[in-house]
Amino acid sequence: MGFWKSLFTGAETDTPPRDKDLSAKTLTEVSSQDRGAQIVFSTERDIDLYELEELCDAVGWARRPIRKVRKAIEHSFLVVTMWEVQGNRRRLIGFSRATSDHAFNATIWDVVVHPDYQGKGLGKTLMKQLIKKLRSEDISNVTLFADPHVVDFYRNLGFMPDPEGIKGMFWYPD
Amino acid sequence: MGFWKSLFTGAETDTPPRDKDLSAKTLTEVSSQDRGAQIVFSTERDIDLYELEELCDAVGWARRPIRKVRKAIEHSFLVVTMWEVQGNRRRLIGFSRATSDHAFNATIWDVVVHPDYQGKGLGKTLMKQLIKKLRSEDISNVTLFADPHVVDFYRNLGFMPDPEGIKGMFWYPD
Repeated sequence: MGFWKSLFTGAETDTPPRDKDLSAKTLTEVSSQDRGAQIVFSTERDIDLYELEELCDAVGWARRPIRKVRKAIEHSFLVVTMWEVQGNRRRLIGFSRATSDHAFNATIWDVVVHPDYQGKGLGKTLMKQLIKKLRSEDISNVTLFADPHVVDFYRNLGFMPDPEGIKGMFWYPD
Repeated sequence: MGFWKSLFTGAETDTPPRDKDLSAKTLTEVSSQDRGAQIVFSTERDIDLYELEELCDAVGWARRPIRKVRKAIEHSFLVVTMWEVQGNRRRLIGFSRATSDHAFNATIWDVVVHPDYQGKGLGKTLMKQLIKKLRSEDISNVTLFADPHVVDFYRNLGFMPDPEGIKGMFWYPD
């Protein structure tokens, strides 16, 4: 974990779950950081979408309509965000989400860590939170589509490219 | 289309949509067949799950708990089934479904055509129905994970493996 302490303490809030079928408590996990700041993970979906847009801008993603981003978050099975919290200030520094059929398969989308916070193991921790939550929901098939430069990042987390020759494919209109 | 006539007639039922956000009318499309039988496509989810299990058995898939299959169908964004209809008898001969965030991405799962009906272009027609519906819902990124022996089937439908080096990856627990 390098700069960040690896100690996590579960701190479940009493916010009711958004989706009864998810049967998931809103989860906030806290990682202590040196110098008084904390890294906090949350499955809350009440995100300032302009703050999220800023985060995505910072890594150079193409802008997407806020309206569609809101809909995508609403209809994702799981959203895990990462925050730096210092006193009563908090800053969104990471985001990830997964679609799912709530039974067998999940697909992870939109994993992002702010450039200022990259290279500290935080992306790995964010992904581990997401995977842990998916597994706790009895999802056995956790999948994603990785850009070439992050294939090794996901490989180190236990993801395998093209297992048994299975090919990720994208439809392109004629 | 070979044996099957390629003429489709849209015949929308007045069944209310299951998911308001999908804003999709339940769609039944009909393809005429020689000898009095018809091939019918439907997005209805009221499927006899034992009939679906029989279909999946016929192609040699491992059995899955009915309870989980029901949940997966309920939480899929879209289900398209294919039926042979003769008089008032109907037989489930194909199935497909997709998960989605209802905004950007969809992932297709569980595409199956009964062996007796393979090699007639029906799998292709089933997929085209599914893609058409996803596109009509403004989903721009249609994806799937293809077993090696069906990569060419999907390629012929316009799916590209590993576009720009993007890798499909599956998580395997340690």
